[in-house]
Amino acid sequence: MAAMRWSDMDALGHVHNGRFLEYFEAARADLVNELVDIGRPDGLGLLVARHEVDYLVPLVYRRAPIAVDLWVERIGRTSFTVGYEVVEDDRSVIYGRALTVIVAVGLPSGRAEPLPDFVREALNGYLREPTDAEPAGPGS
Amino acid sequence: MAAMRWSDMDALGHVHNGRFLEYFEAARADLVNELVDIGRPDGLGLLVARHEVDYLVPLVYRRAPIAVDLWVERIGRTSFTVGYEVVEDDRSVIYGRALTVIVAVGLPSGRAEPLPDFVREALNGYLREPTDAEPAGPGS
Amino acid sequence: MAAMRWSDMDALGHVHNGRFLEYFEAARADLVNELVDIGRPDGLGLLVARHEVDYLVPLVYRRAPIAVDLWVERIGRTSFTVGYEVVEDDRSVIYGRALTVIVAVGLPSGRAEPLPDFVREALNGYLREPTDAEPAGPGS
Amino acid sequence: MAAMRWSDMDALGHVHNGRFLEYFEAARADLVNELVDIGRPDGLGLLVARHEVDYLVPLVYRRAPIAVDLWVERIGRTSFTVGYEVVEDDRSVIYGRALTVIVAVGLPSGRAEPLPDFVREALNGYLREPTDAEPAGPGS
Repeated sequence: MAAMRWSDMDALGHVHNGRFLEYFEAARADLVNELVDIGRPDGLGLLVARHEVDYLVPLVYRRAPIAVDLWVERIGRTSFTVGYEVVEDDRSVIYGRALTVIVAVGLPSGRAEPLPDFVREALNGYLREPTDAEPAGPGS
Repeated sequence: MAAMRWSDMDALGHVHNGRFLEYFEAARADLVNELVDIGRPDGLGLLVARHEVDYLVPLVYRRAPIAVDLWVERIGRTSFTVGYEVVEDDRSVIYGRALTVIVAVGLPSGRAEPLPDFVREALNGYLREPTDAEPAGPGS
Repeated sequence: MAAMRWSDMDALGHVHNGRFLEYFEAARADLVNELVDIGRPDGLGLLVARHEVDYLVPLVYRRAPIAVDLWVERIGRTSFTVGYEVVEDDRSVIYGRALTVIVAVGLPSGRAEPLPDFVREALNGYLREPTDAEPAGPGS
Repeated sequence: MAAMRWSDMDALGHVHNGRFLEYFEAARADLVNELVDIGRPDGLGLLVARHEVDYLVPLVYRRAPIAVDLWVERIGRTSFTVGYEVVEDDRSVIYGRALTVIVAVGLPSGRAEPLPDFVREALNGYLREPTDAEPAGPGS
């Protein structure tokens, strides 16, 4: 779930495409918090390395939070991929789909480091097969 | 070029990943403005349908604008793809690379519509071959 | 209550001063929604005409929403003033205090219009005496 | 001058009230930069303690930067007050007026500290008498 803000909307009267990334960040807070709670080793950071976002249906502000389903789609050596869908609670509408690649880096070097075992284990609990379905965007 | 704001930085002291989308938007303003100046037909809108963004090097606020190179990478029937690089003026550092798919929709229906000929022609002036080089992100 | 976002923080590691206005907006959503539900007459808009904000204690992101107390401090002929405090739930810390003047305007003229009676009545339910206490800001 | 972004506009099609604070911040960058260039003593921070903002005329996005006049209105013992006007270049329209109180704090204590002499001298160069004119806002 992610709380919406009226000011997330732009002059078209829809949530601005950049603000979706803040909804994804809110959804990741649970996941990252669990990783941190387990015990983040000194000097390890988790950085956003890549986003892919498909905007499927325009989203309008409402007072209730919007549902953001989140799962882990891939666990690599130094990075993992999170998938999301921004949806109605009953999944009657999918507003957007996205992937984020998160990379573990040593601090302050900023160089990629292997994911610690306890992180890999925690991520395993969120693992789900990639969806076959390609996002059916509006264009061609 | 895109003007930076000090508040684009997050608590890590780097430009927040979501704010890069506002830099891309600033870079697109030239392109979109040219299309609009030529004469946008009634009832045609240009919507963001997809973003792919690779964050390569952390970017810190500076007072001078940051260079954002922009080109058109694909012209389809109802959509086109814009490519960007956020770089130092001398291209000594590439902070990020991105693609945005823009789709033409009829208003208010929101359904994809063929790109008008004058838009295709204007886009042709920005056309560049896709780069072979895969973004060399920090993770694996 | 207002949901916080990690990206509300700036490079000092505190919530950016501009983002407090989005917390106030979230708190006003209840009030404005009640006014609208009762029945907003055609052609009446409610615009922000003035903010006064005192930043008292730096605020750091947390996952739980932050409490924003809200009341109506003044009901004028064409405008009203909302007061807020951003606080810990137990009021052990006051992070900020603010006032917002909201003016009723005719649409599309944008000229100030008298507050309709049903709006005045609804606002009365939120009326509280102005606080005597001056905000004890850090400077002099 | 402050660069505008299309996404500064909200669903009313005007620049959102919170984004004005980012324009003020951009205008302050010159002033603060001069203070820092002169030599900011270790352990001194400059924090926003208060904003007062009057929104006079709705502002719409344009590609050219918007003019933000800035001056220093008061130099106190531990704080100073900056004034601004967001205007057309020819001052034919005043979109907003604002004051910001900036307080010098010791770091990491966060307690107010006297403004160093070299800061007071630099601020003197921006000093201007307070305007008599009250902002003529739309409401009453």
